[in-house]
Amino acid sequence: MSRVTIVPAEDRLTPQIAFAVEIDKLKRILRRNLLMDGSRRENDAEHSWYVATLALILAEHAPPGTDIQRVVAMLLVHDLVEIDAGDTFIYDPVAVAAQAEAERAAADRIFALLPGEQGAGLRELWEEFEDRKTPEAKFARALDRFAPILANHHTEGGTWQLFKVRAAQVREKVRLIEEGSPSLGAYARAIVEESVARGHLPE
Amino acid sequence: MSRVTIVPAEDRLTPQIAFAVEIDKLKRILRRNLLMDGSRRENDAEHSWYVATLALILAEHAPPGTDIQRVVAMLLVHDLVEIDAGDTFIYDPVAVAAQAEAERAAADRIFALLPGEQGAGLRELWEEFEDRKTPEAKFARALDRFAPILANHHTEGGTWQLFKVRAAQVREKVRLIEEGSPSLGAYARAIVEESVARGHLPE
Repeated sequence: MSRVTIVPAEDRLTPQIAFAVEIDKLKRILRRNLLMDGSRRENDAEHSWYVATLALILAEHAPPGTDIQRVVAMLLVHDLVEIDAGDTFIYDPVAVAAQAEAERAAADRIFALLPGEQGAGLRELWEEFEDRKTPEAKFARALDRFAPILANHHTEGGTWQLFKVRAAQVREKVRLIEEGSPSLGAYARAIVEESVARGHLPE
Repeated sequence: MSRVTIVPAEDRLTPQIAFAVEIDKLKRILRRNLLMDGSRRENDAEHSWYVATLALILAEHAPPGTDIQRVVAMLLVHDLVEIDAGDTFIYDPVAVAAQAEAERAAADRIFALLPGEQGAGLRELWEEFEDRKTPEAKFARALDRFAPILANHHTEGGTWQLFKVRAAQVREKVRLIEEGSPSLGAYARAIVEESVARGHLPE
């Protein structure tokens, strides 16, 4: 092999490994919601696995023509910015507003660890997720909202109880699920109303 | 909408949600290796996220023509059988042999929670991973072996030290990485030899 073919390959693998070492930290970022057995808080890495796998399993509930591979990739990287910016509780509007700038700075740092065009591509994928305009982003966001509702439903209210969340706030999130997937939205609505009826989510 | 279009959709979503609830348990299956900061053992769900994300980042190190989307899907589901069968330490040959039957029984149960052809498709994907014959399976297995080597290298020997693993055993795993990706294999070989030189992995 000539030096010309070896050197670029080395140049790319070294920053890719630096990125790989960096993103291991996602396993230590804790979310508010609990595992479905209620035993402990979920971390961002296992959450990202969960929603990416849901995208595979529930692909048929996305609008026809949705690129599911793009949804999976989007969900695998959607929380990486929280390595720097931390997790925000979606029912805390003040925290959500302050978070945007911190996440943008985190994206600047973390995706730039990769070779130029590769980092730019992943950053675009993250921005697409944040902007929630494409069918892929809407479906990805729907799954991201669906997972904690499913977990709270299975832990008798879980973090809804713990953080005094009201039914109206959850119903607002259900509307975002409906935007990405009418059938998942309908299912989410049904379990939310069931949680209200059981007294696990106050009006 | 007619009843005819509604009923099949409901029939598929109900078992898909049952599967979604079941696989949450993967977050509670602990592996032997540690996080890269050495703070605790890794679980199967965050490991699955990690290697699926590595597949995206390191795609160019797979042989040309490798279907990376298939690799990602394979890695998302590759450890689901451990919900029933538990994790096996790859350096314990007796445990590895006994594990095969338990994992097959687990696959029978877990993938069958999904609608028929969907469960069969994911089970095939898992078997393809296990059989390690296709370029996709070889690359997926390479990443599955690469991740703990990277973690052990970054934790001064980590579980190699803890479980008295020898350099010859790790070099054998490096050969499997080389089979799936020559460039990742070369990188793994270099960090393993560096760990040996630093005294973190005994000959």
